[in-house]
Amino acid sequence: MEADCVKRSIDINCDLGESFGIYTFGQDEPLFDLITSCNIACGFHAGDPATMAKTVQIALQKQVAIGAHPGFPDLQGFGRRNVSLSPREVYEIVLYQIGALDSFVQAARGTLHHVKPHGALYHQAASDPIIAEAIATAVFDFRPQLILYGLAHSKLVEAGKNKGLKVASEAFIDRRYRSDGTLCPRSQADACIDDPITAAEQALHIAMNRQVLPYDTPAPIPIQADTLCLHGDHASALEIIQQVRQELKDQKIHVQPAIQFL
Amino acid sequence: MEADCVKRSIDINCDLGESFGIYTFGQDEPLFDLITSCNIACGFHAGDPATMAKTVQIALQKQVAIGAHPGFPDLQGFGRRNVSLSPREVYEIVLYQIGALDSFVQAARGTLHHVKPHGALYHQAASDPIIAEAIATAVFDFRPQLILYGLAHSKLVEAGKNKGLKVASEAFIDRRYRSDGTLCPRSQADACIDDPITAAEQALHIAMNRQVLPYDTPAPIPIQADTLCLHGDHASALEIIQQVRQELKDQKIHVQPAIQFL
Amino acid sequence: MEADCVKRSIDINCDLGESFGIYTFGQDEPLFDLITSCNIACGFHAGDPATMAKTVQIALQKQVAIGAHPGFPDLQGFGRRNVSLSPREVYEIVLYQIGALDSFVQAARGTLHHVKPHGALYHQAASDPIIAEAIATAVFDFRPQLILYGLAHSKLVEAGKNKGLKVASEAFIDRRYRSDGTLCPRSQADACIDDPITAAEQALHIAMNRQVLPYDTPAPIPIQADTLCLHGDHASALEIIQQVRQELKDQKIHVQPAIQFL
Amino acid sequence: MEADCVKRSIDINCDLGESFGIYTFGQDEPLFDLITSCNIACGFHAGDPATMAKTVQIALQKQVAIGAHPGFPDLQGFGRRNVSLSPREVYEIVLYQIGALDSFVQAARGTLHHVKPHGALYHQAASDPIIAEAIATAVFDFRPQLILYGLAHSKLVEAGKNKGLKVASEAFIDRRYRSDGTLCPRSQADACIDDPITAAEQALHIAMNRQVLPYDTPAPIPIQADTLCLHGDHASALEIIQQVRQELKDQKIHVQPAIQFL
Repeated sequence: MEADCVKRSIDINCDLGESFGIYTFGQDEPLFDLITSCNIACGFHAGDPATMAKTVQIALQKQVAIGAHPGFPDLQGFGRRNVSLSPREVYEIVLYQIGALDSFVQAARGTLHHVKPHGALYHQAASDPIIAEAIATAVFDFRPQLILYGLAHSKLVEAGKNKGLKVASEAFIDRRYRSDGTLCPRSQADACIDDPITAAEQALHIAMNRQVLPYDTPAPIPIQADTLCLHGDHASALEIIQQVRQELKDQKIHVQPAIQFL
Repeated sequence: MEADCVKRSIDINCDLGESFGIYTFGQDEPLFDLITSCNIACGFHAGDPATMAKTVQIALQKQVAIGAHPGFPDLQGFGRRNVSLSPREVYEIVLYQIGALDSFVQAARGTLHHVKPHGALYHQAASDPIIAEAIATAVFDFRPQLILYGLAHSKLVEAGKNKGLKVASEAFIDRRYRSDGTLCPRSQADACIDDPITAAEQALHIAMNRQVLPYDTPAPIPIQADTLCLHGDHASALEIIQQVRQELKDQKIHVQPAIQFL
Repeated sequence: MEADCVKRSIDINCDLGESFGIYTFGQDEPLFDLITSCNIACGFHAGDPATMAKTVQIALQKQVAIGAHPGFPDLQGFGRRNVSLSPREVYEIVLYQIGALDSFVQAARGTLHHVKPHGALYHQAASDPIIAEAIATAVFDFRPQLILYGLAHSKLVEAGKNKGLKVASEAFIDRRYRSDGTLCPRSQADACIDDPITAAEQALHIAMNRQVLPYDTPAPIPIQADTLCLHGDHASALEIIQQVRQELKDQKIHVQPAIQFL
Repeated sequence: MEADCVKRSIDINCDLGESFGIYTFGQDEPLFDLITSCNIACGFHAGDPATMAKTVQIALQKQVAIGAHPGFPDLQGFGRRNVSLSPREVYEIVLYQIGALDSFVQAARGTLHHVKPHGALYHQAASDPIIAEAIATAVFDFRPQLILYGLAHSKLVEAGKNKGLKVASEAFIDRRYRSDGTLCPRSQADACIDDPITAAEQALHIAMNRQVLPYDTPAPIPIQADTLCLHGDHASALEIIQQVRQELKDQKIHVQPAIQFL
C-alpha cells in the first residue's frame, strides 16, 4: 500500500575514532549504542594505530557497521584544509588508508562495510568529478563489495554508481542546507543545528518525505538519503541522536546499516 | 644421494621501495630482475603511497614475491633508531603497515607473500622475545598464511614458529658475522662486504654448507637460512647479486621465493 | 637573622601549550594566574605553531616567564617514549625547537627565560651525562643567558653548571620520591599525589626545609630546588596549586621566576 | 657616466639544504662556491635539524649569505602542493620556520640575511596580497632588518615594501617567462632552460638591461631584479652558474649578497 512507497529503512552514521595519542576527541562510547554505522579515522587527519584498534574492537562488540574514513595528510588541520593533490595521489592515499584500517578489522575477524571520505576531501569529492572518480576507483580496486558514502546528489555519489559500487547517499542531521542543496559552510553562524527537537525534525523530514527545509527559503527541497550523519563532537550530540531515534521509531522507520537495505 | 644433503632452494630478498616524495633511494629497477622476493617500505620509516603503488606494480610485473616491510615511525632516522614502544604499540604499527601495503597488492590483484620488519625493529625483534611475539601475532592476525622473515636463529624466528606461521630464516650476503652468530654492527668499519667475489662466496657457503665464516675466528659457524638478504643501497649491489646468482646457478641451487619450498 | 639562612624565593613552573590542532590538553588559562614560569611545547611532542603563538601571548600578558620545552619528535607518544638519538641529534633537535619557540617570543617583543626538556628526553638527560651535555650545549650555543631547568641533583643540572649556564634545580609538587632521590615511575599506582593538602605539604617541605619525604622510608631526604613543577593535566591541578600558593604565602616564601633570584 | 645607468651589482641565490634524513638532494657543496646567497629549507617541506646545522656551517665557511626558506608542511609533496592555510596560519608557520633556522645561525655565530618562501607558498604569495602580507609581517615581526626575497613585480615584493622591509626582487636564470611576466609552469615542457649559454644570456639580459625575452613573443619585457635564482637540482646547474658568473664578470657586474647594495 501507501506504506510501501515511503522509505522504511535508514542508516545513521557518525565519525568516530578521532582521538590521537594522549588527545581525546568526541564521545565515542555512548554514541556507539545509538548509531548503525561509523566512520573511523585512519591516521592521516586523526586517529592512530592504537585508536583504530580500539575503535574497531568496540564497533564490533556493539555491532555497528565499520567504515574507513580517509582524509588528507593534515593532522594539525584535522583534514579540513584543502590540499591540492593530483587524482593519482588521492587514489593512493585513499587506498593506503582503507588498507590500514581494514587490517584492524581483519585482525578482529570483522568485515569492512563502507568508505566515506573526510572533511576537505569529502567536499572536494562532492563537487569535483575527477577527485570523485579517484576515490571511487580506490574503493572499487580495494574491494568492489564496499559501499561508498557520499553527499546526496554529489559527484561522489555519481562516480560511485558509474564505477558499479553500491552507494549510500548521505544527508546531515545537524547541519543546515541552502536552497541549492549544498550545506551552509561552517564559517556561517547558523551552520549547525544545536537544538535536538529541530535536528530530529530535519532527520524525520529527510527519512520520511525525502525533503529538507533549507535555511534561506520557505520551500522544501528534495533530498534522497540512505544514511543520516551526526557529528559526534557536537555538544548536544547525544540528546540529538536520542531524539532522532525516538522520532524514527515512532514513525516505524527502521534504522539499520546500509548493507541491509541497499 | 649426495644432492639430498645440501639445500637446493633458496630465496634472495632485498629491501625496495625506500624512496620518499622527490627523494630517490637505492636502485630498485635493475635489482628486480635478480631477486625472488622484495620487502617494500610502508611509509613509516621510508616509502609513501605513491612509491608503494609503483613498487608493487613493478614487483608483480617482474614476478617477484612481495613482502611488507614495517618499521618504526621515524622517517628522519630511516627506522634505524630505537624507539621504545610497548608490545601492544608494536603490534598495532605492524598491523597498520601490513594493511596499508596490502591495499596496493589487492588493488593490483596480487598476493602478499611475507612480512619482514625493518631496521631497529628487526633487531629488537631478533633479541627481544616480547617484541618478537608482538610482530608474529600481528602477522598471524592479519593473515595466517603469510611468511614471517627474521634473522636466522633469532627470537623472531622462534616467535613465528610458536605462533604457527611459516618462517623464513634470513642470512646476509653483504654483512659480516661474529663468532656468536650476530652481525657486526654497522658502526664497525668492516661491517659490510663490498667485494662481489667475497660476498658470493659467503652466499654460496650459507646456501650449500649451511655455514658462515665469521669475521673474528677462523672456524665456520652453522647458519640455517631460507633466504639471503642483499642491501639494495650498497654501491656494488648489482655486481654482488649478479655474482651470487652465477655461483648459485653453477652449483645448481634453485633460487625462488620462499613460498615455493617452505 | 634566622630567616636569612632559609630560602625565601622559589619558582613554580608548569608545562603548558600542549594542545595540538583541534585537540586541547590541560587547562592552561586558569593555571597562568598561579604559576611564575611556564614550559611551552615546541611542536615535536605536542604543540603547533598556532598553539605556540597563542600560549606565548597569554604568558606575556600574565607576566609568566617563558621557557622552551623541547621533546623527542614523537607526537603520538607525547614525547614520553625513548628514542635513541645520538648526542649530536639531541643537540640539533633541542636547538631547532628553542629557535622555533623563540620566534614567537621575539615577535611578541618578549624575552625567553629558560629551557626545560620534556618527558623521555628530560629523564634521559637526568641520568645520561652525554645527553645532558648535548642539551646544555644547545642552550648555551643558542643564548648563554638562558636558564636551564633540570631535575634536582641530576646530570642535566651538572652539565648546565659545567657549561657556565644558570641552572634551576627542579622538584615535583605532585610526584612521589623514592629514598634514592629519584621519582616513582608513572607506571606505579601511587606515583602521583592527588590530594591538594599532601601536595602542598610536600611543596612547603621542599621550599622551607630543602627536604622531601620519600614514599618508601620514614626519613626525609635532602633536595635542593629552585623551582617546583606542577603537572597541568592533573585532575586537581588547580586545587593543588592554590593550596601550595596559600601555604607558601603563609610562610612568607616569595614565589617568582627563577631569573629573579638565581 | 654610462656606467651609472646600468645595474652594477646583483645577487645570485640558490635553494640548498634540501636533503632529508638518509636522502640527499641537489649538489650543495660545489654550488656554494658560485653563489652569493642561499635559501635553506627549514624542515617543513625538506631539510631536517641535522641538514640545517650542516648547511648553515658550510654557508658561513663559504661566506654565502644565509636565508630561511619556509614552506608548507608537506614533506611528501616537497612543498609544491597548495595547502589552503589561513593568513594567520601562514604567519605562524613562517615565523616558526625562520626561528628554527635562525637557531643554527645563532649557534654558529652568524647572521640571518633574508627570508624567501618556497614552492607553492612562494607562488601563492606572488599573487595573493593577503598571503603576501602574512609572510611580510612574519619576517618583520621576527626581525625588521631581514631582507624579503620575492618574485619581481609580485604581491610579495609589494607587501614587503608596505611593511617597511628591504626587498630583493627575484628573477630566474633557468626558467622561461611568459609575456605577462609570469613564469611558464613546470608542467610545460620548455619551462626550464637547460642550456648554459641560453641561461647565461637570460641572466645577463636581466642584470644589464633589466629585460627578459619571454617564451611566447619576440619583444622583451621589463624585469627589475636584485637577485637571480638558480635551481640547484638542475642537471646542468653547475655549468649554468659557471657560465653566468663568467658573463657577469666580463660585463663587470658585481655579484654579491643583496645586503651589500640594497
